[in-house]
Amino acid sequence: MTSLPPPARAFASDNAAGAHPAVLEAVTRANDGHVLAYGDDPHTRECEGRFRDLFGAPVETLLTFNGTGANVLALASMLGPAEAVVCTDWAHIAVDETGAPERVLGSKLIDLTTTDGKLRPDQLRELEHLRGVQHHAQPGVVSITQSTELGGLYTVDEIAELCDVAHSMEMTVHLDGARIANATAALGGGVETLRAFTIDAGVDVVSFGGTKNGLLGGEAVVYLDPTLARSARYLRKQVTQLPSKMRFIAAQFNALLDRDLWIRSAEHANAMARLLHQLTLDVPGIEYDAPPAVNSVFPCLPPDAIEPLRAWCFFWDWDVSRHQVRWMTAWDTTDDDVRTFAEGVRHILAGCN
Amino acid sequence: MTSLPPPARAFASDNAAGAHPAVLEAVTRANDGHVLAYGDDPHTRECEGRFRDLFGAPVETLLTFNGTGANVLALASMLGPAEAVVCTDWAHIAVDETGAPERVLGSKLIDLTTTDGKLRPDQLRELEHLRGVQHHAQPGVVSITQSTELGGLYTVDEIAELCDVAHSMEMTVHLDGARIANATAALGGGVETLRAFTIDAGVDVVSFGGTKNGLLGGEAVVYLDPTLARSARYLRKQVTQLPSKMRFIAAQFNALLDRDLWIRSAEHANAMARLLHQLTLDVPGIEYDAPPAVNSVFPCLPPDAIEPLRAWCFFWDWDVSRHQVRWMTAWDTTDDDVRTFAEGVRHILAGCN
Amino acid sequence: MTSLPPPARAFASDNAAGAHPAVLEAVTRANDGHVLAYGDDPHTRECEGRFRDLFGAPVETLLTFNGTGANVLALASMLGPAEAVVCTDWAHIAVDETGAPERVLGSKLIDLTTTDGKLRPDQLRELEHLRGVQHHAQPGVVSITQSTELGGLYTVDEIAELCDVAHSMEMTVHLDGARIANATAALGGGVETLRAFTIDAGVDVVSFGGTKNGLLGGEAVVYLDPTLARSARYLRKQVTQLPSKMRFIAAQFNALLDRDLWIRSAEHANAMARLLHQLTLDVPGIEYDAPPAVNSVFPCLPPDAIEPLRAWCFFWDWDVSRHQVRWMTAWDTTDDDVRTFAEGVRHILAGCN
Amino acid sequence: MTSLPPPARAFASDNAAGAHPAVLEAVTRANDGHVLAYGDDPHTRECEGRFRDLFGAPVETLLTFNGTGANVLALASMLGPAEAVVCTDWAHIAVDETGAPERVLGSKLIDLTTTDGKLRPDQLRELEHLRGVQHHAQPGVVSITQSTELGGLYTVDEIAELCDVAHSMEMTVHLDGARIANATAALGGGVETLRAFTIDAGVDVVSFGGTKNGLLGGEAVVYLDPTLARSARYLRKQVTQLPSKMRFIAAQFNALLDRDLWIRSAEHANAMARLLHQLTLDVPGIEYDAPPAVNSVFPCLPPDAIEPLRAWCFFWDWDVSRHQVRWMTAWDTTDDDVRTFAEGVRHILAGCN
Repeated sequence: MTSLPPPARAFASDNAAGAHPAVLEAVTRANDGHVLAYGDDPHTRECEGRFRDLFGAPVETLLTFNGTGANVLALASMLGPAEAVVCTDWAHIAVDETGAPERVLGSKLIDLTTTDGKLRPDQLRELEHLRGVQHHAQPGVVSITQSTELGGLYTVDEIAELCDVAHSMEMTVHLDGARIANATAALGGGVETLRAFTIDAGVDVVSFGGTKNGLLGGEAVVYLDPTLARSARYLRKQVTQLPSKMRFIAAQFNALLDRDLWIRSAEHANAMARLLHQLTLDVPGIEYDAPPAVNSVFPCLPPDAIEPLRAWCFFWDWDVSRHQVRWMTAWDTTDDDVRTFAEGVRHILAGCN
Repeated sequence: MTSLPPPARAFASDNAAGAHPAVLEAVTRANDGHVLAYGDDPHTRECEGRFRDLFGAPVETLLTFNGTGANVLALASMLGPAEAVVCTDWAHIAVDETGAPERVLGSKLIDLTTTDGKLRPDQLRELEHLRGVQHHAQPGVVSITQSTELGGLYTVDEIAELCDVAHSMEMTVHLDGARIANATAALGGGVETLRAFTIDAGVDVVSFGGTKNGLLGGEAVVYLDPTLARSARYLRKQVTQLPSKMRFIAAQFNALLDRDLWIRSAEHANAMARLLHQLTLDVPGIEYDAPPAVNSVFPCLPPDAIEPLRAWCFFWDWDVSRHQVRWMTAWDTTDDDVRTFAEGVRHILAGCN
Repeated sequence: MTSLPPPARAFASDNAAGAHPAVLEAVTRANDGHVLAYGDDPHTRECEGRFRDLFGAPVETLLTFNGTGANVLALASMLGPAEAVVCTDWAHIAVDETGAPERVLGSKLIDLTTTDGKLRPDQLRELEHLRGVQHHAQPGVVSITQSTELGGLYTVDEIAELCDVAHSMEMTVHLDGARIANATAALGGGVETLRAFTIDAGVDVVSFGGTKNGLLGGEAVVYLDPTLARSARYLRKQVTQLPSKMRFIAAQFNALLDRDLWIRSAEHANAMARLLHQLTLDVPGIEYDAPPAVNSVFPCLPPDAIEPLRAWCFFWDWDVSRHQVRWMTAWDTTDDDVRTFAEGVRHILAGCN
Repeated sequence: MTSLPPPARAFASDNAAGAHPAVLEAVTRANDGHVLAYGDDPHTRECEGRFRDLFGAPVETLLTFNGTGANVLALASMLGPAEAVVCTDWAHIAVDETGAPERVLGSKLIDLTTTDGKLRPDQLRELEHLRGVQHHAQPGVVSITQSTELGGLYTVDEIAELCDVAHSMEMTVHLDGARIANATAALGGGVETLRAFTIDAGVDVVSFGGTKNGLLGGEAVVYLDPTLARSARYLRKQVTQLPSKMRFIAAQFNALLDRDLWIRSAEHANAMARLLHQLTLDVPGIEYDAPPAVNSVFPCLPPDAIEPLRAWCFFWDWDVSRHQVRWMTAWDTTDDDVRTFAEGVRHILAGCN
């Protein structure tokens, strides 16, 4: 298709990236002698302290292996008897976790229709008719995703209003933050930004993503409302998410949280997506709905161009009915990767037109 | 208690040890650029090939995060409708996994009484009265642990007979091999040994432990009967055990399986336990039931000695009613660690007598 | 509101009606001495035979207590590992069973959007993209409701096409027949009608309703494909649906199936709904979308009339946003009940206009 | 074997008996016109009142279909996150419900070894070591059975002590009263007796049996601690135990509770067991461990006599290793039945000796 060499890193997913060097160094440093297993070690204690500092509150933090595990643990801690989880029809928990929530929680997901993966307060209010009726699972937890599965963002005010409505209906709020770092970077970038759309907005429990932001693997369930963590240690093991050599998950997070590496990495990924958007915006045949909010762009491409382009440099489809694909950047995507890829896109699309 | 400096590594658990340098190097090497997530990467393919070579058969291997996850995935793949798991009352799945099997599988564990954590064929045969009776969950899977939770071993013949009886009763056999390496080392040490007590004996699915044998973290579910893996990929995600950056689990196993590192590490740990037993056998006040079969010894101590000894160098209780404790060695326990510890034991027990 | 005495029987639900005299007599007759419990009795054997005769095939029938129980048992028998149930967003299993399927099955319901509660073959075909992808629960069972939750009907051809598509995608088909008698009556009325839209169309398992059609209480899960019943006896007890004194459920069904009482009762209820529709069609202020297909009508009423009318003779709301209510007839609704109610409607609506 | 005609009613089970005439009459009387479904009817309200009167306290009562359903609902209401149920290894929930608790609750049953099906306070105290350890499901509910599965009885003091210990360990207490009436009759017979070993002793929730005591079918979950009923209405539907035509379950209980019919029926059954014991005690070849406490006797028989005797008049085995069988009486067992059976036993055993 093109004689241009593909970029060193493709645009398939931030999951396709490896670990940040600082993360790997931290793991190596932590690999020193014996420490007790299952979290009774100094690395884990340091990590718990770092999360308290991050949120400026006595939050409880439980480390887990992966995002599905973090979400399931969070929801298991929050759900009462016969309660359901309210989410969007785009929610990762509803469409991309192979039914793990239903299996492990035994709970219904009420997945409300949205066009953009963002729940609206009125959608919560409309659930009022379910309350108190014995034939319906009772809405107990609202789960939102920030940044959303569609690469969008809730504003601080939007989350605050959702939390207000949820709490007024006796529901608690879970935030699936698999890409919370990208959201934080996009919304301002500082610790205050994070706090504004989470603890200050009224979110009760966060799945704080690490894997997609430069860890080998690891996620944290952060109980902003620490009373919800009461049974969490038992639940973590019960849902198969208790790491025995926890120091190695903790050490990764300690590196990630150190000197805002988590925000800097995410801001870099976001910037690379903006650059990619900018460099391809005027390519004939490409159409964008919107510029990227975080670290993914969703162009519609000429149908004939998709396979040649993918053969040259891999990426995933998004909405095949619109010939829309997803290009995602990561913490390690370079300026060169983006420029090379954009050039290839331009070249291959020219050949297909 | 003693002015002797404690050993560099305590005897709390093989989970307290870190990762073998070769494992960490493999992770570092694997941290190179982008590869697809969720197992579609060369490291994972290599790992699958290594397990096929190890067992000399077209086994299917699915990597998971931890032992509870591996066990739950294995059992989820094996259980039919309304079936129960048969195990001993010492089984890790029954007593040390916080009810994860019951929650995630929704299945009863029929935990049969044993004194030594080893299931007997006659115990299976006695379950015949349950079969075909609609009031009883139907025995579907037998789960045995090798080496056992009590540090013992099944012989090859014992496992073969259990498998024969199980299969004749239309049950399949799961082997929880959290310490399968220690068992392999203790029973002879070669690949043939492993095959003899697993695939040749008739075991259907193995939880192949890595974490306790020098990994950062990672276990493998090996479907010796690959037809049982039919739905395993979906089940793995559904039980929250799908690693996104799977290359890092695979790379660890690739290092562990390379040139029998897994057996050599386990044999070393076993040897250290034998040495510890030998060096403390004649300490006044210590009583042993038996020499160690694998990498743990279970001495009964003078009651007054336990806390001073533990304060000097940490270990866990085993059977408090007998003042029995557990000292466990790991892949990285050194001859020096053992000699220092044995000396401290002798010293502290002398002071307490 | 009106001095007219309300009808002897209201129009709240067919669940509000009692048992048909023949059913009660059968229970009384069956209450004679001792018979073995749990289905090993002549009444249950007769019942199983009656269902084989009804479907003209060696179907397996398991009696249960209620509709939710029948649905859950049917689905538990049909679902494979990590599989999901496909249904409409109006499905009783999805919206009116308090999450019982999710809890007891541990399975996701993929509830597809419909305006009329009827699944379309193309909606099944669109699920093809889920197959083989480890991140998605695999579509395993299609569940349709006949007559639908909205009082509509699938034609024989519509069900046959759904079954063809489902089977071609390796799914099986469950039919929730809580009102299967009303559907049978409406589609022709004979046993051939029943067979045409169930066993001949390719349906695999039916929840055959009895309670709403004149029983004290009782439903039957009929395995048109008897191989799906393999584990059903165990599953029935496991999902809490095994009646100990099963003769009393069986005797009710034996009376209901005798000389087509089930069809005659349903046809009567349907006729009463048609009469009610006819007698109120021209009442000023009433609007109907369509005449009734089975035993319920769904008029939109002047908002002010609803509460006075309900105070006089109870019924339930349907779509409050449209001021739509549901009037439902039962096996015991009389011509007089309908005429009195229609007169009251006319009278009260006149007063409100 | 014998030319003697067998008794009109065999001794297989109290489940083999039909319904008491007063119960059937009540159902017939309740079958009058329409009432709202799902418990919003006068029969159900009367029933709730009768249970409040019975226990002399503002208890909450939820009617269910069967014993397994009642137990599962009770336990679902009582269990907290990651909690386990503590019971004996003879408990019906542990051995005779096909794993329904594990499936529907997702919870571990910790089934403690007993010789007589009676839990001891010390067995609870020994569970203290599980508390607070993240690797163990946390003991949350103690479930005892009165009368026990072995036909025995707890004294009032025994239950009170178990409740005290359980509560001191932050557990709640469930009493499986499938045969609570037989226990009440045996322990004194009045309402005070019932209260003494339940509400006064500290029991929190009771499964109050009806089916085995002359109902067509029906059980009641009585929340002596009404705060535990908070989510019970939703849970009942979620575990498939919500009867739509609830009036027919309620009417049965209303008849059973009227003028102590439940106690009189059970006392009669108990008396028949005592008579049977007395009339067979001296039959050569029969051995009894103890006289009956409630409505079953457990003789050991000459092996050769069992099949001929069973062919003449059916009963179930109990402990085949001891040639022990179970003869059970019911509310409708007559003096004649017992005398005829005892005569047959004597006759057949004479022929076999």
